[in-house]
Amino acid sequence: MEELKQRIAAEGQNLGNGILKIDSLLNHQLDPMLMVNMGKELAALFADIKVDRILTAEISGIAPALMTAIELQVPVVYARKKQPITMRGPIYMEAAPSHTKGGMVELLVSGEFLKAGEKVLIIDDFLASGETLKALVRLLESANAELVGIGVVVEKSFESGREALGEAGVDVPIHALATIASMEGKTITLA
Amino acid sequence: MEELKQRIAAEGQNLGNGILKIDSLLNHQLDPMLMVNMGKELAALFADIKVDRILTAEISGIAPALMTAIELQVPVVYARKKQPITMRGPIYMEAAPSHTKGGMVELLVSGEFLKAGEKVLIIDDFLASGETLKALVRLLESANAELVGIGVVVEKSFESGREALGEAGVDVPIHALATIASMEGKTITLA
Repeated sequence: MEELKQRIAAEGQNLGNGILKIDSLLNHQLDPMLMVNMGKELAALFADIKVDRILTAEISGIAPALMTAIELQVPVVYARKKQPITMRGPIYMEAAPSHTKGGMVELLVSGEFLKAGEKVLIIDDFLASGETLKALVRLLESANAELVGIGVVVEKSFESGREALGEAGVDVPIHALATIASMEGKTITLA
Repeated sequence: MEELKQRIAAEGQNLGNGILKIDSLLNHQLDPMLMVNMGKELAALFADIKVDRILTAEISGIAPALMTAIELQVPVVYARKKQPITMRGPIYMEAAPSHTKGGMVELLVSGEFLKAGEKVLIIDDFLASGETLKALVRLLESANAELVGIGVVVEKSFESGREALGEAGVDVPIHALATIASMEGKTITLA
């Protein structure tokens, strides 16, 4: 997606250790028109796949997942990282190591909003190591829902998350709106 | 907003202690078409006010804030509750007591995305005690930005947050898409 690549090239910062700062457009500030276009692009990439529901993870997955859902006209459920008092059982829970936060992050989804047999598209902000996405895939497996695709805003291909997903048995289409091939020194090299 | 009131009446659950479970439409699952309509309604309520930016708080404020921002064509910034490693100073920080989570919740906004003199509309999911909204207002004061209005999806008027905002000196228009007048026993009484 050319518009997104240009924005990353203009506004992105390489903070070292593979940490990409793009909080002007995804992780803190949101540009609504760019978000609309990201939703349209993600929806177009999965246009030929039947989707019943979108699954994402709070926090930064919510905006791109919602915009994609508007295009596809399907509900979104966002995995919570702490159990809210309004979440009642049964609850599906998985944990994933977090590169950017350290430690483990829990992902919880109520059984109310993830049903057996549903065809689910996962949308998230980043595909880096793939650990969060693998945990979301396991949530779907626990619910006997069917994964039909994975779409992300930014893939950091040098962290090999796509390969890790393959090794975990994921064989659905995986699409990214922008791919970062390397982050050496202070540079950001878009694919 | 009649559509929202009907959905709350049909899907809302009173869990006691003033806790309203509407996670089928706001706090866990999102209905994209309802979200689009909520954004249109919120934008219409503030149509005669000049707005440069929308401020909300993660997590459940993101979706209604983004949908309102799309209508008004202004950027959103969502206050973070933990400092991400990509957030660099100067940082504005306020804390608010949380009724639903217990303890204090911190709200952090980077000075990059909240500028002196900007006219800011606050959008959030709930107006209950008003504590979170008061903390967002203080963030704007710290940044020398100008509060021009407050819009929420649901107001629990029996928790008197509107009065608490008034006592804190807030004298801008405050609008809610749905107002809950009381939650006695297991009932939910819409205003």
